[in-house]
Amino acid sequence: MGTWYITVVTAAAMGGGLTQWRESVARLLVSCTDRPGLVAALSSFLRDRGANILHAAQHSTDPEGGTFFMRLEFKLDERDTDREAIERAFAAEVAGPFGMEWRLSYAAHRKRVAVLVSRYDHCLAELLWRWRRGELHADIPVVISNHPDLESEAARFGVAFKHIPVERGAKPAAEAELLEFLGRQYELLVLARYMQILSPEFLAAVHTPIINIHHSFLPAFAGANPYRRAHERGVKIIGATAHYVTEELDAGPIIEQDVARVTHREGVDALAHTGADLERLVLTRAVNWHLEDRVLIYGNRTVVFD
Amino acid sequence: MGTWYITVVTAAAMGGGLTQWRESVARLLVSCTDRPGLVAALSSFLRDRGANILHAAQHSTDPEGGTFFMRLEFKLDERDTDREAIERAFAAEVAGPFGMEWRLSYAAHRKRVAVLVSRYDHCLAELLWRWRRGELHADIPVVISNHPDLESEAARFGVAFKHIPVERGAKPAAEAELLEFLGRQYELLVLARYMQILSPEFLAAVHTPIINIHHSFLPAFAGANPYRRAHERGVKIIGATAHYVTEELDAGPIIEQDVARVTHREGVDALAHTGADLERLVLTRAVNWHLEDRVLIYGNRTVVFD
Amino acid sequence: MGTWYITVVTAAAMGGGLTQWRESVARLLVSCTDRPGLVAALSSFLRDRGANILHAAQHSTDPEGGTFFMRLEFKLDERDTDREAIERAFAAEVAGPFGMEWRLSYAAHRKRVAVLVSRYDHCLAELLWRWRRGELHADIPVVISNHPDLESEAARFGVAFKHIPVERGAKPAAEAELLEFLGRQYELLVLARYMQILSPEFLAAVHTPIINIHHSFLPAFAGANPYRRAHERGVKIIGATAHYVTEELDAGPIIEQDVARVTHREGVDALAHTGADLERLVLTRAVNWHLEDRVLIYGNRTVVFD
Amino acid sequence: MGTWYITVVTAAAMGGGLTQWRESVARLLVSCTDRPGLVAALSSFLRDRGANILHAAQHSTDPEGGTFFMRLEFKLDERDTDREAIERAFAAEVAGPFGMEWRLSYAAHRKRVAVLVSRYDHCLAELLWRWRRGELHADIPVVISNHPDLESEAARFGVAFKHIPVERGAKPAAEAELLEFLGRQYELLVLARYMQILSPEFLAAVHTPIINIHHSFLPAFAGANPYRRAHERGVKIIGATAHYVTEELDAGPIIEQDVARVTHREGVDALAHTGADLERLVLTRAVNWHLEDRVLIYGNRTVVFD
Repeated sequence: MGTWYITVVTAAAMGGGLTQWRESVARLLVSCTDRPGLVAALSSFLRDRGANILHAAQHSTDPEGGTFFMRLEFKLDERDTDREAIERAFAAEVAGPFGMEWRLSYAAHRKRVAVLVSRYDHCLAELLWRWRRGELHADIPVVISNHPDLESEAARFGVAFKHIPVERGAKPAAEAELLEFLGRQYELLVLARYMQILSPEFLAAVHTPIINIHHSFLPAFAGANPYRRAHERGVKIIGATAHYVTEELDAGPIIEQDVARVTHREGVDALAHTGADLERLVLTRAVNWHLEDRVLIYGNRTVVFD
Repeated sequence: MGTWYITVVTAAAMGGGLTQWRESVARLLVSCTDRPGLVAALSSFLRDRGANILHAAQHSTDPEGGTFFMRLEFKLDERDTDREAIERAFAAEVAGPFGMEWRLSYAAHRKRVAVLVSRYDHCLAELLWRWRRGELHADIPVVISNHPDLESEAARFGVAFKHIPVERGAKPAAEAELLEFLGRQYELLVLARYMQILSPEFLAAVHTPIINIHHSFLPAFAGANPYRRAHERGVKIIGATAHYVTEELDAGPIIEQDVARVTHREGVDALAHTGADLERLVLTRAVNWHLEDRVLIYGNRTVVFD
Repeated sequence: MGTWYITVVTAAAMGGGLTQWRESVARLLVSCTDRPGLVAALSSFLRDRGANILHAAQHSTDPEGGTFFMRLEFKLDERDTDREAIERAFAAEVAGPFGMEWRLSYAAHRKRVAVLVSRYDHCLAELLWRWRRGELHADIPVVISNHPDLESEAARFGVAFKHIPVERGAKPAAEAELLEFLGRQYELLVLARYMQILSPEFLAAVHTPIINIHHSFLPAFAGANPYRRAHERGVKIIGATAHYVTEELDAGPIIEQDVARVTHREGVDALAHTGADLERLVLTRAVNWHLEDRVLIYGNRTVVFD
Repeated sequence: MGTWYITVVTAAAMGGGLTQWRESVARLLVSCTDRPGLVAALSSFLRDRGANILHAAQHSTDPEGGTFFMRLEFKLDERDTDREAIERAFAAEVAGPFGMEWRLSYAAHRKRVAVLVSRYDHCLAELLWRWRRGELHADIPVVISNHPDLESEAARFGVAFKHIPVERGAKPAAEAELLEFLGRQYELLVLARYMQILSPEFLAAVHTPIINIHHSFLPAFAGANPYRRAHERGVKIIGATAHYVTEELDAGPIIEQDVARVTHREGVDALAHTGADLERLVLTRAVNWHLEDRVLIYGNRTVVFD
């Protein structure tokens, strides 16, 4: 999955109150082997720079030699504006000695996001609608699709639309065009019901994390036609799953899931309608948490800090 | 509010009140190929015998040649006590002409249930506790186990305990002993975390439906160690599934499922604790619905009437 | 599995398939004092006209002198197109003799709906988005508001916008204008976060049901500022409630409610964000059920048929 | 409510893995006015004593002059066994300078709990069953009741039963007897459907927190007969609420709530059955969180640390 992930990021607004501070709010994501003194080292470093911790959350997989994770959201001293100096000092004084993987980011920074879709509009409409409302702290300059259908939906929100068809037998060419189009300009790709499987070559070449929404309660019904298979199996609850994309189809680290009850009365079409509401809620939650630097990956699992 | 709506003012409370009628309440479950006139034929038959319909629910998979299902709960005329005569008349006048599969049962009849367990007590304790409270309308004369551990739990509720060990390599002998013990005395077997897989031979020989509780959200994590596998997969929601047992392991018709949220903080043990609460609720719901003749099987799916 | 169960193997998928029949599908809603023979009378009437029942649901508050409710959805014989004749016959043969209140409606008829809003866009956007997708079977010719803010949102979906300001002290004039504008052209008003209390005089004069979305789990936090009051009370779950509007504020018959968990971390703004998602789902569900003639009112309660 | 509450506590088992460390695990609960340096001061104190933080959670109502809350669970250096010395040092070095309210407790300590009941057995059975399973890390030496009915239920789990009748007009005498019986021997009272309202005089005299389960989604239906009133109001969701008892009836700080869907089909009795399952789950969760020192009260609200 590349090396983008353990690093961390900046502060987004939770509750309206933080908005006004956005300029000076930062987030530190850290992971390392657990040992005594980690919380003290991290919080003392921040205190010594005059930062005020707004929110702290910590998790250990096992206090005896397990992995330690921490997310700190803090308000920097307003005079402390030399970010490179902060990062150099943190690397030297804390991250180096404790062998931490880490990332520091700033609430004022809006991540650049490209949304990929095919023909279904519900996930795209939800993302763009929340984005316009200010609920997604990101820039969304473009919607990319292998079909032309949703161009007007993107236009409705003032977002550019890039059509990159995927002809039968010509996926490598399409992926090459997509890679070239993306360049190094984006920090996150969101597959909002993009119905193409991305090749291992594409995943190795792209330099961003990718979040996908799968329309089942993974690992049940991975792969194609999950609503049809859920109906055939006669499940009483259906689900949707947002996960990071890895080479193995529908098997990447899960960020969020949610479910809804169904009965014998619902046919496949009714499952798909109910499921569409799950998909758009689950995907927007996952994207938001990623944008707020709440998600850490370890192995094939995630830590999602509240 | 104008005159558009159907106003009704009286409306008394239901629930509870049915107890006193139990002697004369019956339930009719029907399925056949859908066609016009089925509801009329069923309800006219009941009206002509002086029965009052207490609850009716109907489902069609497709009104053009699909399958029709109906459950009718009704109060028989108190003088209409010759059940064989009723069944003969129904077969001749309705079921025969319309090619119905059907079953008539009586609320006064308490189904005889045997509960099979291994070492976990939570599902057993829940079933017996609800049974003692009068929430399960059944007779539970015996708890059967391949381990001796839960004898005192059965005794606590005044229920006999039968220990049928399953020695390594001697499952056929154990199943034969179980079959002989059961005889034709029971109408339902409940596997309340019974950790033995029943052989196709046993399933072919036994004359009762069998309800099992599986500790995952099937079809995810069918088979062994579902909580461990759920933890490894990093799911954000766990589940439990009650289903009828068929030859294919954990693949029989699903009666009920429920789920609970989990986070990165929960280890395998915590998942098992949370899951235990799901298991006992899901299993008792499924058993109750079966006892109340609310469940119809078609193919590998169920209709569960409210 | 033995022979105890009702086996059915065919079972096709439902949902979706009804569209092509819409022309000949009708729905009958009935209520009256419960007594034997009601289901038979209703279904025999339909059978005798060659109608095929697609879905039947029935409810009794008490089989001994309680109230009987039934909803029948059926496909009329395609040659049976004289609706007045059907209604006359039903009144004479069934409704009259049994003293039923009743209403017959036709799936092909799209109810005309006016949506009233103030400044919040989330409920309006959800309704219009679902309407455009074909999920709300209605005509929505106009959005009416006491503020001009959402005109562009209506325009985005090609819906007219009528601005009727409510000046301080001049509510009677505004309500008169609203009544005149509505005339007799609408069959349902939806208050999609319309922040004005409608007067008893208006409610007496309007000839349509009105559905409102209240941003709390009624009856908790009826009236103003429910999120603020929920936060002050420290509840762990918030809700939204869709109900029919009556003279008593926030006290009309409840159609649907839903809830979401919150924690000590969420401030009032975060509750409002979470609650907005509840509001739009709950309101669209309630409107949809009303449009599909699934809701009966009795006293201050509703029966909502599946 | 007295002064017991802001203080904090000891470690309970989360996941099985902690059990073996229980002897050296402690919990520190802290609250004070927010300001920079608090996390550093707390964590540095622990580091300097060789403690390893197992779990840390922090919350601020407002980083600018709001209230800061923190819960730290940590493993003390095994040689650091002089608890009074630890507490003296903490008071002098950290709590004093920052003006903290605080409480330190130890996982090895089992709180002594008295359970009060009337006639309903479901909450009592659930508490005692979980306690026997080891899921409630407490001592429960006695069940107290104003009725004799549940003596055998207590006996079933080997718990003493104290019958203190409350005669009409003689509540002061009964409360005096209860106070004398309790003495100073208990650290928590649990009202597991105890149907007597405790007087302000009793609450002022008792020296323990009291957790009550109310059978509604407070603040809806505070007071008597909540299921009947929920049925009359026609709600579509019912709930249960566990809260600390204060002088104002059903108005104390809420610890936990949960809900279940109901329909028009359920009468009052059915609501009470469904609600009983909510009550027992909600009450046991709240008691468990209190026992694990996860709950802080501020104003009339609670912080519940994960």
